Amino acid sequence: MLSTLRGSSRAFSRACSARVTPRIQHQRAIHNTLRQPAVAAANVAVDSVSSYEPFFVNEPSAPSIKTAIPGPKSKAAITELDEVFDTRSLNMICDYENSIGNYVSDHDHNLLLDVYAQIASIPIGYNNPALAKVAASPEMLTALINRPALGNFPPASWTNTLRSGILAVAPKGLDQVFTGMSGSDANECAYKAAFMYHRRRERGEGAAFTEEEMTSAMNNEKPGSPDLAIMSFKKGFHGRLFGSLSTTRSKPIHKLDIPSFNWPQARFPQLKYPLEEFAAENAAEEAECLADVERILTTWHCPVSAAVIEPIQSEGGDFHASPKFFQGLREITKKHNVLLIVDEVQTGVGATGKFWAHDHWDLPSPPDIVTFSKKAQTAGYYFGNSLLRPNMPYRQFNTWMGDPARVLLFNTIIKEIGRLNLVEHTANTGAYLYSGLEQLAKKYPAEIQNLRGKGQGTFIAWDSPQRDAFLKNMKTVGVNIGGSGDSAVRLRPMLIFQQHHADILLESIEKIIKT
Amino acid sequence: MLSTLRGSSRAFSRACSARVTPRIQHQRAIHNTLRQPAVAAANVAVDSVSSYEPFFVNEPSAPSIKTAIPGPKSKAAITELDEVFDTRSLNMICDYENSIGNYVSDHDHNLLLDVYAQIASIPIGYNNPALAKVAASPEMLTALINRPALGNFPPASWTNTLRSGILAVAPKGLDQVFTGMSGSDANECAYKAAFMYHRRRERGEGAAFTEEEMTSAMNNEKPGSPDLAIMSFKKGFHGRLFGSLSTTRSKPIHKLDIPSFNWPQARFPQLKYPLEEFAAENAAEEAECLADVERILTTWHCPVSAAVIEPIQSEGGDFHASPKFFQGLREITKKHNVLLIVDEVQTGVGATGKFWAHDHWDLPSPPDIVTFSKKAQTAGYYFGNSLLRPNMPYRQFNTWMGDPARVLLFNTIIKEIGRLNLVEHTANTGAYLYSGLEQLAKKYPAEIQNLRGKGQGTFIAWDSPQRDAFLKNMKTVGVNIGGSGDSAVRLRPMLIFQQHHADILLESIEKIIKT
Repeated sequence: MLSTLRGSSRAFSRACSARVTPRIQHQRAIHNTLRQPAVAAANVAVDSVSSYEPFFVNEPSAPSIKTAIPGPKSKAAITELDEVFDTRSLNMICDYENSIGNYVSDHDHNLLLDVYAQIASIPIGYNNPALAKVAASPEMLTALINRPALGNFPPASWTNTLRSGILAVAPKGLDQVFTGMSGSDANECAYKAAFMYHRRRERGEGAAFTEEEMTSAMNNEKPGSPDLAIMSFKKGFHGRLFGSLSTTRSKPIHKLDIPSFNWPQARFPQLKYPLEEFAAENAAEEAECLADVERILTTWHCPVSAAVIEPIQSEGGDFHASPKFFQGLREITKKHNVLLIVDEVQTGVGATGKFWAHDHWDLPSPPDIVTFSKKAQTAGYYFGNSLLRPNMPYRQFNTWMGDPARVLLFNTIIKEIGRLNLVEHTANTGAYLYSGLEQLAKKYPAEIQNLRGKGQGTFIAWDSPQRDAFLKNMKTVGVNIGGSGDSAVRLRPMLIFQQHHADILLESIEKIIKT
Repeated sequence: MLSTLRGSSRAFSRACSARVTPRIQHQRAIHNTLRQPAVAAANVAVDSVSSYEPFFVNEPSAPSIKTAIPGPKSKAAITELDEVFDTRSLNMICDYENSIGNYVSDHDHNLLLDVYAQIASIPIGYNNPALAKVAASPEMLTALINRPALGNFPPASWTNTLRSGILAVAPKGLDQVFTGMSGSDANECAYKAAFMYHRRRERGEGAAFTEEEMTSAMNNEKPGSPDLAIMSFKKGFHGRLFGSLSTTRSKPIHKLDIPSFNWPQARFPQLKYPLEEFAAENAAEEAECLADVERILTTWHCPVSAAVIEPIQSEGGDFHASPKFFQGLREITKKHNVLLIVDEVQTGVGATGKFWAHDHWDLPSPPDIVTFSKKAQTAGYYFGNSLLRPNMPYRQFNTWMGDPARVLLFNTIIKEIGRLNLVEHTANTGAYLYSGLEQLAKKYPAEIQNLRGKGQGTFIAWDSPQRDAFLKNMKTVGVNIGGSGDSAVRLRPMLIFQQHHADILLESIEKIIKT
């Protein structure tokens, strides 16, 4: 898929400085006028430090913290914002114009190394010039101001838009895509596809809907609206709308007071770390979880149409399982005619050192459906079996069916990932970072527990005894970092995160642990 | 809200010709290079026809049909597209670069008067210069390429973004907004808000969740995941995700094979036309429907937390009810402590001759929640009661919480609606169009039945005995027009639809009826 890789970090740096098109001038203008001190500092750093060359020439060489966070300007802005917007989940008031590459600026011009990246969703850096270029293109203009109802009135260019980007990185064995708006939306549309496919198989090809089905469906009753289920896994997260929330099992706060479907959850392996030390116990744990899957698929009160799973349970606490577990899951779902939906909303698009995290598994046959969002900056689901296109039009349909403007950005992200070889780059940077964290974990075993994510790019996490305080304190040394589950620190840097950023991160972690 | 109205159609035309900024030059360039013949024709028309002045100076004076639809180029494009995209719901392959104002171009350069407008979602014309300007602005650039996780990391500008546009047109009595991605998403988030509010009232202010609630919620069981319902109305349409689809009752095709919640549907008035002739019968019908509502609210197997209703049932077949019915519904829902959610996804943003369709009702107290999407080009829900903000953070939350890029476009749409007085304009054009249709209905009573939407702007519909053939034939005379329900022709022109467009539409309808 990414067969024309020829870039390097050097090439990107050069590209940033050399190709001064009018759009990049505009982009530059933002930085030059608003961030002259930071830009100047960065340029000095690039000239004087020869051990690395940053992807972003204008990136600073280190975080810069000037005030407490939130500082005075941020505090005033939060008070103002709270009148019209719920600020209780607010983390920082950001200044995106002054953010660059791996660094996010807050409203008081504190500049932080960002290894959380808008909840794992910024792929190739703040104010990326390639994204700025496509944002100013005629294609973007028309996509923004002439938003099409894609299912009814697609532009002729839609074929090429799909083929040249979003489908060029389709997971192996999947060659179709249904575009959507968010991870929740993508998962729910995938569930709908699974239910329609289930009934299509039961009904037999070519069989029409019965009068009874049509009447009962309108009353939300069987047989038209059947009792069918999606199986998910304990601690899994798949979104917050009614169908996706019924499969989400990460935390009560997401689910309390919301009606849900009576769908099953299987056990997800709870591995012990370090993996080498607990190989036998972990294998037994995974075998038990697969047995739990099979038990549910054969005994649940209604048929299970699909199983949905994250390659690495992210929101729930960064829980991993081995390729062998996923191979077993593929085998069992195949055996029971249950579709396998792999939710790559957080793991997809390069962060694990493969373009899709499930590429690590060496599956005997591909997943039936793979969903994506976040780093794609748009959302949707891939599939390969043409029978997953419903048997009639308007069954999988909505007004916009995604947003071509956001799809153009995803396509550019894909091109940049290919040009700069960012998947392999992330595998390498992740290995470097993991090794540094292993050293720290040896030195501070009480502070860094259950380090996990080896060989999974920068998709790394560990448990911290005072996690929330740790996350907060990291801001004082200029790092924006996130958590997951009850006690995990999760690293979700961008794909342009480099070794020198890893050095800053490792130093900062040690500094906070030591204080 | 729109207190600084000072524009006119003349002002807009002048603005289009006078303010040639670089961005508009870019916009012009598209038209001048790609559509010279059409542009030339339009200019001649403007010079020679003094009876009207179009909002868009470059708009043609009439449709232009060169080939069958689909023509040869479109047919080839459809074949190509079908390999990667379900084309069975395809209506036309469009050429958005060559579309302008009220006219949509297809891939064979047929130019059609568009009174369907991307399923009622294009608000102020194709290639609108004000939208082109904001699309090329620095604010748009940063919103596109630095997509924030708004709930955690909003920019300081978010307060002003909300206040200056989206909240400036908030329905009377509602001063808060939760932004989302689509109509389905907006409705489901509104339902979640209603459920959380319901349990908050039951639980008592300040009461904590019980251990049992937290444990059972994780298992999708009572009491944490309670049996609560949203009541909708027969023939209503509220979206296609699992919660919204459970309230959608328009057509079996949307619902078949998809599990749903056991939620109730009340009868929606089936009025007889002309209204003057059937006043007594219609009043009795509405009273019966209100009795049905009260019966459900007091007898359903579980508590009903909210009722959701469209001001005019659109997808279901363009069914209307009187202000008295809605006043009664507000009264009954208040009486039973049930929230009233008004789904203005299709009716909102000016099309009915009021900014919000429920402004027609003169309600004694406002709806509790109003949802929007489509012509807003983004989505979300408005509310006024601060207790509808959940009692804790992260209960109404998701990664992106909307898209600031699309919100910037909505804000510009709001400004243009104000500047050009497009709500009043649409009320007037609608009255003119309705009167023309009344004449046609008198002349062809078998072809135009149950004409409806008087005094509702351009939100007009009628029943046609051979509706699908009629819609198709209208393309041959250059009009893109849509249907709803089983037999309705629904008019959904943009807010820049003018009397001369109405004349073309009326002539075209008569032409097709006569053949």
